[in-house]
Amino acid sequence: MKLTKYIAITFLIAATPAFADPLSLWNDTETKTSIMEFVEGVTEEGGENFVPVPDRIAVFDNDGTLWSEKPFYFQGLYAIDRLQEMAKADPSILTSDVLKAANKNDMKGMMAEGEKGLLEIVNISSTNITVEAFKASSHEWLTTAKHPTTGLIFAEMTYSPMIQLLEYLREEGFTTYIVSGGGIDFMRAISQQAYGIPPAQVVGSLGKTHYEVKDGVPSMIKDGGITFVDDKDGKPVGIDRFIGQRPIFAAGNSDGDLAMLEWVTSGEGPTFGFLVHHTDAKREFAYDRDSDVGKLSKGLDEAAAKGWVLVNMAKDWAEIWVGKL
Amino acid sequence: MKLTKYIAITFLIAATPAFADPLSLWNDTETKTSIMEFVEGVTEEGGENFVPVPDRIAVFDNDGTLWSEKPFYFQGLYAIDRLQEMAKADPSILTSDVLKAANKNDMKGMMAEGEKGLLEIVNISSTNITVEAFKASSHEWLTTAKHPTTGLIFAEMTYSPMIQLLEYLREEGFTTYIVSGGGIDFMRAISQQAYGIPPAQVVGSLGKTHYEVKDGVPSMIKDGGITFVDDKDGKPVGIDRFIGQRPIFAAGNSDGDLAMLEWVTSGEGPTFGFLVHHTDAKREFAYDRDSDVGKLSKGLDEAAAKGWVLVNMAKDWAEIWVGKL
Repeated sequence: MKLTKYIAITFLIAATPAFADPLSLWNDTETKTSIMEFVEGVTEEGGENFVPVPDRIAVFDNDGTLWSEKPFYFQGLYAIDRLQEMAKADPSILTSDVLKAANKNDMKGMMAEGEKGLLEIVNISSTNITVEAFKASSHEWLTTAKHPTTGLIFAEMTYSPMIQLLEYLREEGFTTYIVSGGGIDFMRAISQQAYGIPPAQVVGSLGKTHYEVKDGVPSMIKDGGITFVDDKDGKPVGIDRFIGQRPIFAAGNSDGDLAMLEWVTSGEGPTFGFLVHHTDAKREFAYDRDSDVGKLSKGLDEAAAKGWVLVNMAKDWAEIWVGKL
Repeated sequence: MKLTKYIAITFLIAATPAFADPLSLWNDTETKTSIMEFVEGVTEEGGENFVPVPDRIAVFDNDGTLWSEKPFYFQGLYAIDRLQEMAKADPSILTSDVLKAANKNDMKGMMAEGEKGLLEIVNISSTNITVEAFKASSHEWLTTAKHPTTGLIFAEMTYSPMIQLLEYLREEGFTTYIVSGGGIDFMRAISQQAYGIPPAQVVGSLGKTHYEVKDGVPSMIKDGGITFVDDKDGKPVGIDRFIGQRPIFAAGNSDGDLAMLEWVTSGEGPTFGFLVHHTDAKREFAYDRDSDVGKLSKGLDEAAAKGWVLVNMAKDWAEIWVGKL
């Protein structure tokens, strides 16, 4: 080999990130191979599966897909903390049995009225507050409050293999979106810091808001209530409203994500869909068909037929949580 | 001067786009100077007005700001054309006086019931149709149908100075959004081609849609009706819902844009807002306080006090329409 050629190759090896494993936090299983083969296919200029950069849209559920969701959705835990804090200052806000139950950490009482009751709890922390103040409060909580069983700060319970996957996709020309049933402002409070995802690339459930000018100062006020639920059939609708084109890559973890995966993977050209299966009781939590949060049942039955990959957390992930801010 | 230095400078001049006028389609007036001074300020690394790239968000109204809106909003003209086409095949769709008036181009009859009547007309073309088919139909119309007085194809009636401004801002690290009262799908049908703005950066009024799987084929269906009006106070709300951060640059042309300009220009740090004043009866149309579309009255009264620039179309623009696809 001529010296110049040798130098050129050495330089290429040093300069090309492809020689570092872009998914080093994923074990070398079929799952990892299938993700990387998909990405290599759609980015191979001139290849039969090539997809131009503007069409490389990837969507990710948040609760249970990008961060943990046990024992309960983090926004629910935030809402209970805020309610208890506010009730200390003014107990008269506890106007119903559900709110009183939440104030005493009585989970059964809180769940007694189902979704309607949960919305009542969430409304306490997201009514008569500016979007800015709500985001500041959410960010403060996510970066200081501690999880009841792990003792980790909530924002430390994002999944490092998934964050690495987001980075890998972005390096390969993808635009990465969150498409989650969670409240849009709660997620936007931390999405850039936690995932490198800017606010405009967060799609979530929407509360009522209005614009108001008071004493010459304009502000955006949260009014409580829900105007759009970004879950189940709402996910493809949210994608269509916010993104305006069909993604080619989708990741979720529960039956609430199936319509999104179906919409994405039935598009023309190459597509990829996967479901994170929470199989890791030792390092995280193990749950699927019988769980109150993140129930995965229909998804387990249909994944194979639909061509969706089941990510086996215990087997496929070399580590779980980021564990640091 | 040493030769190497001379060569270096020559190279810099040739390679630096700053030596070409990035707003060559704007006349050398105060307006152009004020826009360029703002952009130079926020992009000057280390300068007191420096704004990091992720915060360089610019929002543009569409009708009357990026393309013409006379004699009527283009989507309204599209809706009438579609209605007449559909009524030819099936006259039984003309179920009301307003629809019958639209079918006969009777402008007075069409306007008789105000916004409610107009929505009825628009609904005919945007109900029971997939989002994809609606966009295809809109794109076809925008790129073939001709304007009643200019004879230009509608998509040729975008303003070249504004398209140049969009490009200039993007080159300077801005992300450019449309924030318009127009229907989101109608604008997305042409936004990339006409303005270089991808679908996800188009915010507009929203019709009802639902996700449906029929014979195993998923689709997104438009149901008619309006769930969100992206006009007046709705514009800051739309910005907050879709973009999730406060822009620093806003452009509009009517009183429907004032809340957006107010929201943007009352933000912290450097901001810029302008209103296109349609003063050019010779090359385009001249209208403001008494116009049915694009009424600009309060904006004329308040611009100076609010620090908003009034773009005098006749004086500030070297040309008007793109005039070619």
